[in-house]
Amino acid sequence: MGETQLREPLDDRIAGSDGELHDDIVAALDSGEAEAVRGLAGALHVADLADLIEHLSHDQRRVLFASLGDDLDPELLSELHGPVLAEVLDLIGPRETAAALSQLDTDDAVYVLNEFDDEQQAEVLAELPADERATLQEGLSYPEDSAGRLMQPDVVAVPDFWTVGRLLEFLRNEAELPDRFFEIEIVDGERRPVGKLPLDRVLRSNADLPLGMIMEEAEHLIPVDMDQEEVAFLFQQYRLVSAAVVDREGRLAGVIMADDVADVIEEEVEEDAMLLGGVAETDIQESVWTTTRTRFAWLFVNLGTAFLASAVIGLFDAEIEKIVALAVLMPIVASMGGNAATQTLTVAVRTLATRELTSTNAKRVVLKEVLVGAINGLVFAAIVGAIGFAWFGNFDLGIVFGLAMIINMVAAALAGVLVPLTLERVGVDPAVASGVFVTTVTDVVGFFAFLGLASVILL
Amino acid sequence: MGETQLREPLDDRIAGSDGELHDDIVAALDSGEAEAVRGLAGALHVADLADLIEHLSHDQRRVLFASLGDDLDPELLSELHGPVLAEVLDLIGPRETAAALSQLDTDDAVYVLNEFDDEQQAEVLAELPADERATLQEGLSYPEDSAGRLMQPDVVAVPDFWTVGRLLEFLRNEAELPDRFFEIEIVDGERRPVGKLPLDRVLRSNADLPLGMIMEEAEHLIPVDMDQEEVAFLFQQYRLVSAAVVDREGRLAGVIMADDVADVIEEEVEEDAMLLGGVAETDIQESVWTTTRTRFAWLFVNLGTAFLASAVIGLFDAEIEKIVALAVLMPIVASMGGNAATQTLTVAVRTLATRELTSTNAKRVVLKEVLVGAINGLVFAAIVGAIGFAWFGNFDLGIVFGLAMIINMVAAALAGVLVPLTLERVGVDPAVASGVFVTTVTDVVGFFAFLGLASVILL
Repeated sequence: MGETQLREPLDDRIAGSDGELHDDIVAALDSGEAEAVRGLAGALHVADLADLIEHLSHDQRRVLFASLGDDLDPELLSELHGPVLAEVLDLIGPRETAAALSQLDTDDAVYVLNEFDDEQQAEVLAELPADERATLQEGLSYPEDSAGRLMQPDVVAVPDFWTVGRLLEFLRNEAELPDRFFEIEIVDGERRPVGKLPLDRVLRSNADLPLGMIMEEAEHLIPVDMDQEEVAFLFQQYRLVSAAVVDREGRLAGVIMADDVADVIEEEVEEDAMLLGGVAETDIQESVWTTTRTRFAWLFVNLGTAFLASAVIGLFDAEIEKIVALAVLMPIVASMGGNAATQTLTVAVRTLATRELTSTNAKRVVLKEVLVGAINGLVFAAIVGAIGFAWFGNFDLGIVFGLAMIINMVAAALAGVLVPLTLERVGVDPAVASGVFVTTVTDVVGFFAFLGLASVILL
Repeated sequence: MGETQLREPLDDRIAGSDGELHDDIVAALDSGEAEAVRGLAGALHVADLADLIEHLSHDQRRVLFASLGDDLDPELLSELHGPVLAEVLDLIGPRETAAALSQLDTDDAVYVLNEFDDEQQAEVLAELPADERATLQEGLSYPEDSAGRLMQPDVVAVPDFWTVGRLLEFLRNEAELPDRFFEIEIVDGERRPVGKLPLDRVLRSNADLPLGMIMEEAEHLIPVDMDQEEVAFLFQQYRLVSAAVVDREGRLAGVIMADDVADVIEEEVEEDAMLLGGVAETDIQESVWTTTRTRFAWLFVNLGTAFLASAVIGLFDAEIEKIVALAVLMPIVASMGGNAATQTLTVAVRTLATRELTSTNAKRVVLKEVLVGAINGLVFAAIVGAIGFAWFGNFDLGIVFGLAMIINMVAAALAGVLVPLTLERVGVDPAVASGVFVTTVTDVVGFFAFLGLASVILL
């Protein structure tokens, strides 16, 4: 119960049905009391307010944004998800939206714009001053899920020949600094990064030292079009707190911080978890209709493989007619194979993603999986063989049951690791497609081994 | 292929079979050329060297650490995993290990110590000076997976009545500062956090301002025994870059940074993904024997439920004997239900973990899932009904097939969402146990609905 209890106070505050603040806001929204709404909404953190908004009806959202008026915190927009953002744009109009965006960090503003369709984007961009529009358009020009989208382009970049004193003076007098920064980027005459200077080092250094002498050398420079998954890998492998991003000419384009990467890491692992379960990553926010369609596609593929498996059973209908126990026991062989394969597959897909499984150790991992499958196959063969014998009083049936179990567990291990390895090698995401192939193998092998052995040994 | 190509250079450098550096080091290790080993190992980042070490044999590791000698980078230890660390302790001895630990950040040193058994811990701690020993023992006293383990206890904490000038002087003259810090913690006379001061704000402020005037107020204080999952949630919900950790008396105990939390987020999502696949989170690093045992447990539970399902089939053996097509088609009903349930289950488990699914919207989510299940059930009923009719030329068989499909898809939706919700409510991790319950439901309901309807309608 510990965990549940820990969660309750937060649930309450955010969106719990018994959360007083939540109920109060909804009541104020439904009765249209603008001032009360404004007061109550102001008492919530924007992240919590965003969660609440995702739970509201369209009418309630309309009243909320009308009530907020100029009190709208621009940060709220960057906390909302796609479909809700498009609705909010309709509610507050392109001018208000543009005003809010120009107060956001560039990466957040690009995130919001990206959730709009082309026409909406154009409307909002038209309301912005030319320089801000250009910055945001550049942000949008980077591919989705690339380093360019993750980075913050507003950075403090100064040349290496400056002294600490000159830097301090610059920081105290320059009005156009980013809201928050954690390090100074050191660049050469072409604005190529040559190093970085964490702020604690600036604070500890003498004023007359040149920055080039105290900076940390630039390493792990990230190309602007690097995939975010690759970026996350670099941050984790080298425990980076920040990394400079460079454009195609090697010039400084922005900086990525560790907290930007945390979201990516969650997103990527989440995506794999969802794909392994046969659902789209965005499943939760989708309508019934979209969810039904995307899940249908996956189930339809499964239907095809299920018919393939049942065609195998169909080959042996004469045998089943004679020994109906075969029909009773055959799903057990298939089910055990399917579960063993899912275990192996899960490990293979995740270790491929974290690069613990590479071409170097692939042979060893395959061998390990086959060994594990064979040992468990032997043990379960003994168990089910004995049960099969006891249940139907037929010793040979027990033998067939056990042999089929061993064969299918080894097939499960092989398929569970070879299928994702092969898909990865040919450039297909192993999380997407492995499941179908693998369970088809264990169903077909399971039914064929069991019924085939039965037709040879029992009849 | 794009992704694969991106990965290759990294694989090569780290542990690729064709990575030259890798091959060179292994060759030098096998021929015992200490100096060559030292030079080559020094050319690798510690994180990459650690990956390489995980792939080496015991003898190769022995030569490596003997060759490294005093060149051993202490950071290397914090990059290694449990079983390898224990082996390294044996290779370099408690004194060298202690010397390395005292150069690490406290949280990293605690991580390393935690991987040793009690006796090994005592040996290493005995080699440390009393004050360092006390700090590490305090770190070890916090529960695993708690905020106390995540935090860095070495922080810069000063009172709010200091001016910026006094702070700057302190930072320039104080020798005992942490290696790296990103903010100043502001504390009252009792060392309770009252605010924090990001370093960029220090750099931008006038020397005569008191810190209390420019600090950000302390919010989101984290109790030292808060579970790391809860910590990660706070960081993500409020996009924190850092948060102060307080002891039971509300005094500052340390600080957690966003990059510490990134690992937690990955660990937690990873754990769910692995549990949903029926394997332990640590599966990859385990021996064949440990893997076999832990997977066996899960498969054994599955065997029980598979026999339950086959007992249901056993109830209808007379029907199957008469119409063998039932045996051919029944696995399709069960398989489709199992897959639909896995889809729903995956979404439910992940949304429970990210708190997108709460008691507030549970009813709506259940309704949505049932709708999706019913719609897909209807569509698949039409498809399989038609196929069943065409295959076996029996119209009523098609009807039975279709009806069973609808029933099982709705049952799959209900079980897929209600089982994890219930487990969460009674305090059991829904990722662990949901799968077994849910597929049992779809197998039993699938077979019972199909064969039961057949016995009523067809016979």
